[in-house]
Formats: sequence, C-alpha cells, structure tokens
Amino acid sequence: MIKVLLCGCSGSMGRVLTEIIDEESNLSIVAGIDKNKTQQYSYPVFSSFSACNIKADVVIDFSHHSMTSNLVDYCIKTKTPAIICTTGLDDATIEKIKDASKEVPIFRSGNMSLGINLIIDLAKKATRLLNDSFDIEIIEKHHNKKVDSPSGTAYMIAQSINEELENRKTFTYGRYGRSTKRQEQEIGIHAIRGGTIVGEHTVIYAGTDEIIEIKHTAMSKKIFASGAIKAAKFLITKKSGLYNMDDLL
Amino acid sequence: MIKVLLCGCSGSMGRVLTEIIDEESNLSIVAGIDKNKTQQYSYPVFSSFSACNIKADVVIDFSHHSMTSNLVDYCIKTKTPAIICTTGLDDATIEKIKDASKEVPIFRSGNMSLGINLIIDLAKKATRLLNDSFDIEIIEKHHNKKVDSPSGTAYMIAQSINEELENRKTFTYGRYGRSTKRQEQEIGIHAIRGGTIVGEHTVIYAGTDEIIEIKHTAMSKKIFASGAIKAAKFLITKKSGLYNMDDLL
Amino acid sequence: MIKVLLCGCSGSMGRVLTEIIDEESNLSIVAGIDKNKTQQYSYPVFSSFSACNIKADVVIDFSHHSMTSNLVDYCIKTKTPAIICTTGLDDATIEKIKDASKEVPIFRSGNMSLGINLIIDLAKKATRLLNDSFDIEIIEKHHNKKVDSPSGTAYMIAQSINEELENRKTFTYGRYGRSTKRQEQEIGIHAIRGGTIVGEHTVIYAGTDEIIEIKHTAMSKKIFASGAIKAAKFLITKKSGLYNMDDLL
Amino acid sequence: MIKVLLCGCSGSMGRVLTEIIDEESNLSIVAGIDKNKTQQYSYPVFSSFSACNIKADVVIDFSHHSMTSNLVDYCIKTKTPAIICTTGLDDATIEKIKDASKEVPIFRSGNMSLGINLIIDLAKKATRLLNDSFDIEIIEKHHNKKVDSPSGTAYMIAQSINEELENRKTFTYGRYGRSTKRQEQEIGIHAIRGGTIVGEHTVIYAGTDEIIEIKHTAMSKKIFASGAIKAAKFLITKKSGLYNMDDLL
Repeated sequence: MIKVLLCGCSGSMGRVLTEIIDEESNLSIVAGIDKNKTQQYSYPVFSSFSACNIKADVVIDFSHHSMTSNLVDYCIKTKTPAIICTTGLDDATIEKIKDASKEVPIFRSGNMSLGINLIIDLAKKATRLLNDSFDIEIIEKHHNKKVDSPSGTAYMIAQSINEELENRKTFTYGRYGRSTKRQEQEIGIHAIRGGTIVGEHTVIYAGTDEIIEIKHTAMSKKIFASGAIKAAKFLITKKSGLYNMDDLL
Repeated sequence: MIKVLLCGCSGSMGRVLTEIIDEESNLSIVAGIDKNKTQQYSYPVFSSFSACNIKADVVIDFSHHSMTSNLVDYCIKTKTPAIICTTGLDDATIEKIKDASKEVPIFRSGNMSLGINLIIDLAKKATRLLNDSFDIEIIEKHHNKKVDSPSGTAYMIAQSINEELENRKTFTYGRYGRSTKRQEQEIGIHAIRGGTIVGEHTVIYAGTDEIIEIKHTAMSKKIFASGAIKAAKFLITKKSGLYNMDDLL
Repeated sequence: MIKVLLCGCSGSMGRVLTEIIDEESNLSIVAGIDKNKTQQYSYPVFSSFSACNIKADVVIDFSHHSMTSNLVDYCIKTKTPAIICTTGLDDATIEKIKDASKEVPIFRSGNMSLGINLIIDLAKKATRLLNDSFDIEIIEKHHNKKVDSPSGTAYMIAQSINEELENRKTFTYGRYGRSTKRQEQEIGIHAIRGGTIVGEHTVIYAGTDEIIEIKHTAMSKKIFASGAIKAAKFLITKKSGLYNMDDLL
Repeated sequence: MIKVLLCGCSGSMGRVLTEIIDEESNLSIVAGIDKNKTQQYSYPVFSSFSACNIKADVVIDFSHHSMTSNLVDYCIKTKTPAIICTTGLDDATIEKIKDASKEVPIFRSGNMSLGINLIIDLAKKATRLLNDSFDIEIIEKHHNKKVDSPSGTAYMIAQSINEELENRKTFTYGRYGRSTKRQEQEIGIHAIRGGTIVGEHTVIYAGTDEIIEIKHTAMSKKIFASGAIKAAKFLITKKSGLYNMDDLL
C-alpha cells in the first residue's frame, strides 16, 4: 500500500484523485494539504506543510504554483518523493525543483495524461518532416474558470516542437490589427475559453493546399488522476532524479 | 449585358472575377482599375478612377480600403452603382458610404458568400436562445499572407451576435498571462494563420456539459465572386440606397 | 414538490437523474421501476409496473423500448403523465403512444437536450436555403457500448430535415464498393463508435467550394436529465396531448 | 529533361499534372493516353497504349484501374518505368504489378501526398501505444462524384494500422440496426460524400474519457501532382523494383 500525501486536496483535481484512489487497492491517501477545507474528508487535512505531522511515501501535488516552493522544502526535509502536476511555475521555482531532485526523486509534468504525451511525440515527428514548408499553430480550449492562458500543456507542446528545430520559433498569443501578417518564425497559440470544456489541444500544420492536424480531447479529469497514480507507482521505485512522462511512455 | 468596372483587377479576387465573368453570358468587364498591372488583361486597365474614361453599369470593388474613398467619389460623380467588398474600412469611410448611398445604389458586404451570411443568421438564432448560459467564442482561419486580423467576416459575425443582445459583448483577441479568466461579457475572437487556407469561420457556444458549433469553410474564392455577380444583377435594378447580403437571402 | 416515478432507475440515465433530482428542491423520486437492482436506492424499486403500488405525479422513462408498451398501459390506467425518453421505438409503439396521449399528457423526445433541439431548428433553416445545391450528410459519434445505430437523435435530425423538403431524401448508412457514387436524394448517416464518447452530432452541408456544418457535443448525460426535469415541470401543467421539445423551446 | 507519358491525361488529375508540369523546367509531357479527348492538348494523345509510338522516360498513370493491366504490359515491353497512382486495383492486378517490378522500376501508391504518408506514420505510432485500450475509427470525406468507397487512402491507412497489430482488425463500413454494438476487433471506416470536397481523412482513437485524432485535409489536387513529380524524379534513378511513398519520406 502506497501512502499518499495529497497537496491541493480541496481543488477539483484533488477531489478526483480522492475518488479514484478510493477505488484503487494499492494506494491510500493518509493526509491532505489545503488552505481551504471545503468538504468532508476521509483523511486528516492540514493547512500547510509545516502543520503536517503525518509521514507518506509520496506527495502528489495538484495545488497552485504559489505552493510549490514550500512543497519542495518539505520533500527535501522529509526525504519524500513528489509528483508535481501544477502549471505556471516561474523559472526560479523550476530551478529549485531541479536542485531538489538531486536529493529526492521528483516527477514533474504540466500534463499527466498519457494521451497528451503521445500527441507531443507525434508533433515532434511531424515537425521534423514538415517544418520547412508548413506553418504551425496551436489551439487549446478549456472551461471558463481557468485563470491562466495559454494552458501549461499548450506551452509544453510548443516547447517540444521548438526542441526539434534549429531556428527556434517565437510564440504569438493572438492577432489584432491591420498589419498582422504571419511571420515564418511564429507559432500562434490560441486560448479558447468557455463553459465546462475539460481540455482540448490541437496542433495544426498548414502548408500549400494541405493541412495536418493532431488533436487531443480530454473528457474528464480522471485521465490526469490515472496518470498521477501511474507516476506514483513508478516514482517510489526510483532514486533521486528529475523524471517526467517520457519515462512512463 | 451588364457592363462591369472592376476595381482591384490585379488582386487575387480580381483575377477570380475576371475568370468567372468570362464564363457568364450576362456580364462583361469593360475596364479595370489597379495601381499595378501584373498580367495580360482582355480589357483596358487604368491606374486610378480619375484616369478612367469608360462608362460602366456597375463597379465591383475587391481592392483595398485605401481606395474606397476615391471609389465613392467616382460613383457619386458618374452615378454608377457600386458593390464594395473590401474589409477593414474605418468609421469615416463607412459614414461616407452611407451618405453616398442617398444618391446612388451601394451594396456593401465584408463577405460576399451566401454561406457566410446564412451562418450569421444561424448564429443570431443560437445567440437568442443560448446567451444566458453559454459562452461565445469565434475562431477564424486564413492563409499566411493575410495582413489584417481578425478577418472582416469574423467581425461581421461578432457584431451580428451583439445586435441580438441587450448587454453588448466586448471583443477579446487573444489571451496571455496568469490572470486571464474569462469574463461573461467577452467574445473571444481568434485569428489562426497558415499555409493557403482560403477561409474558415467557427462560432462556438460552450455551456454546461454541452457545446454547439456553427462552421463555414470556403474552399476557393469563387464563392465570393459568385456572390458579387449575384449582387451586381440585384443592384442594377435598384434605386439609391445602402444594400447588403440580407437583401439577397 | 413533484413526485416522480423513475422507469429505468438502474440504467445510466436513471442514476444521473437520481443524482440531479436530489439536488433539485422541487422534485422527488417516490419510486423506481427496473428489472435489475444494481445499487442502493433512496426510494423503493419495483421490478415491473404491475408490482408498483405507489402513486406519482409523473413518470420519467429512460429505460428500453421493450418497456414502453407496459409503461403506456400503466399511464392510461393510473392517469399519470409520462416523459418518454427511450429511442428505437417501432411504429406500433409510436402509434400506441399517440392513442394514449388522447387520454393523458405524454411528452416524447428521442433527445432531451435543449441544445440538440436547437441544432435541429438551425438545420431546418439551413436546409430550406441550401437544399437546391448542397449535399447533406450526418455524422454521429457515441461510446462503444451503444447497441443501436444510427442514434435516435441522428434519425430525429434526418427526419426533421426531410420535413422541410418537397422531395424527401432517402437515408444511406454507410458506403462500400466500386459503384457508390452519391445520389442527389441521399442523406448519408454515419455512426462512429468508440471509447466513452457521450454524444456528438454534426450536420454537414457540402456545396461547390463551400461547406456549412452545425455540430452538437454532449459532454455528460446531465444535459438530458436537465431536459427531462424541465419537461416534467412543463407536463404536469398540461392537459392530455402529445408534446415534444418544440413545446419547450 | 524527363520525358513523361501521361496516362489518363483527360481526367481531373491528368489536367492538374499537365498544368503543373508546364511550370516545372525539368519535366515535359511528350504524349498522353486517354480514351476520351476532351480538350486542347500541347502534346499528342493516343486512345490506347498499343496506338502510342512515342518513347518516354517514365509513365505517370492517373487513369482507372481497368487500364492498369495494359499499362503494365506496355511498361514491360518498352522497359519504361511507371508511377501508378490509381486506386481500386484488384488482387490479380496487384500481383501482376509485383511480377512486372522484377523487370522494370514501378512506383505504386494509392495516395501520392507526402502529408497522407506522414499521417500513416503517425497512425502507426499511435496504434502501437494505444491499441490495448482505445477504439480506432476512420472518417474520410470526398466530393459527390467519387465512385468508390471507402477511398483507396482510407484503406491504406487501415491496412497500415493492421500491420502494427498481432490480432488484425476487421473493417466495418457503416452501422445500421438495433444490435450494432461495436466489437473490439473492428475498425469502422466511414465514407462521407458531398459537394466538391477534395479529400479529408481522420483517424480517431477513442479511449476512456480521452480521444486522439490525426487528420489530413487536401485543399487541391496539386498535392498529388507534386508527389507524382517527386516520384518520377526518384524513379528514373532506380533499378527494377517496387517502390512506394515510404521510399520518398
């Protein structure tokens, strides 16, 4: 039985994970961390890492990038591996995670879905073949409560495309005006928001009289929780180091 | 036989119209207006309206918004009806067209396709029923040579939606940052650019667990030329006044 | 408080309705009908209508077309209005429902979503304008457990399109072979099946260099439960008669 | 200068190739083969291979599968390499081509677009990763004059998917009836027909709460002509053997 400390247990992904882990026999949530207690929990919930006195085998973090620094401190202090699934991390925090991973295993991904990570692989291949003569644009769609744009996943895709290119592309987040002709080195990234859309990402390669599209649609957040559980099972067998979804594929 | 003066005859729509009108028995291009002569023409081409000494029954204009003011002066002076199909007109020019239409019949549309105008009708109906609980976003796609964003057609759609609403929406042309949560009064308008895409417009209504989409795809510019020809046949039978595609539907 | 008898309470829609009605203050499920008891219920469940001795204000039926005949008998006998939401009814049963509606209010719809019914309205309008020169095809997508093809909703759409036409179209459910050239009077209806897709319907109008598409996506079954609740509130105020979603729009 | 014998020169692809090759300096059409002469040609046209007395470096064939057997005989007799781009070939003809390729270089592809062949590569990769838990369906769309269904390209995609699988899938070309529940070993292939759609192919992987789609859109037939020209330049440098698009990628 893998003991899980769930950071962000009151958030929407925290609740999905609570539900999914209940059905899984090999994991158990032993405690949660959340500033807000919004519901009944079957496990104790602490308002911060410093208040938490329960030891776990792994931390799963679906909270907010403002929590990440404290989380990393906690993992180093208690030698607890961590799955970090938040997006919107700044450079300093990313650096801090890298340093910490020398002492404790850390798994970080802006998107825990296996499908998304396959999409990225396919986009890399398409980019290598098509880059010379096709324009690349990314459209992502999410619900109307999402606070950041574009999605962390859209960034992941765009950055992965760039890794395949000698001449890196720049990112454009919208076009407005009378002189907005597309430049060859642009990747347009477009954030559509509305209703309860769970998550949709499309990479478009538009060439001369020909278009190729690679699209991922998430219909519920369960796919991210499943990925986090797979990552937890993987991570507790590992030594210190920084891991991501490529290691799972 | 309707005699046509074709303004913008060297542009891409000018060339399509030249080809289509050749196949149509009831129209004939008697002269063209264009600053640039880029090809062989079967009709005389003048570099400006003031240089043109040939009389026509109707002007069809697929040039550039910088030409529109001169075009309107010409139409008033020569009492020639005009089909104005350029986009990106500023408020002063729109006002000038309105004034001119008191003296001469003018047909103006940012999109000459019957299909686009049907789409707008459908969007109006959907807006009336769904506005309370659905978010509206528009995605448009065009080729990588297009200089203005969003397309004139996307604006047409957004403004037509607004005409159905008591509380008008504001337009958002892209989202970027950590605090970009969608506001209820927004319509997001997203301009995708790439390859040789002729033109695609999608209106999205995203609600609770439900999405409705209305989409138009243009596969060639012939659909705009066909619409302009229909408009020409319509306009020469009319008195002075300002007309648009609603009058054709 | 409207007392509901829920037929098909163990099925997937029955469970969604049980959950949604719990959250709604103005309705209450007083009993269920289902051959199978698959879970805990907060209300008594009977294996057939003849076994049920509890009186309700309205029956909501999300069971199976094999149950519909018994349901109608029960409604006549007990003078209980009914919302019939099953699909795949044969002609005899449809006729029986019509007859019964002379004695008791019956609301019948193959699709309880307001969005789907809007789509149908839009498709009717598009059909009237485009029929002469556009080909109509319908694509529907559902999960891999669905037993009938095409969906009842796809039929509803196709039949509604036909009601607008002087020369009715015939339906084609797939194309295979070397001589399958499309006939003008065809509507192709294509049933895609896979994964857990909740429900997607697209009506395509394909013309010369121009395509118009009207699409509905359901992301959960809650939209059908919401529609059924709206229908229940509507129906208990009505006299005998046969009602459908047009009466709600 | 590569001398081309163009089989099917009066067909739609024949005309596109004639136009494109005129603009290319390194190729020249020296003769055409077609039963019908429907236009002016800048080269001599023969009604059959036996009537043709002009020698070429390569045959490009965009005619009809009923012509293929004669074409192969001609290539063997005259030692002329051939690019065979027709679809709908029966097993005997495919076998005949294989035999002939021992004597003369033959390039055969049901789809000459580089983009389509990339799509197939991506689908193979996705199939390897997803096959266990995702359902695969293919949707193709073409114009209303196309006589065969599904398209040769849709078959190519489906067969390429099968090559990745230990347990081969069977193909289903439409679903109709009350007991059409999807079987795990099925690939549904759906042929949509309408208007002037040039060609669209989508491979859908539908899993639990997750969908991945890979899509190709052709906007004109030029992409197939470009591919055929690339193949011609490639083939004239080769010895006898059977080649396809994989050799070009």
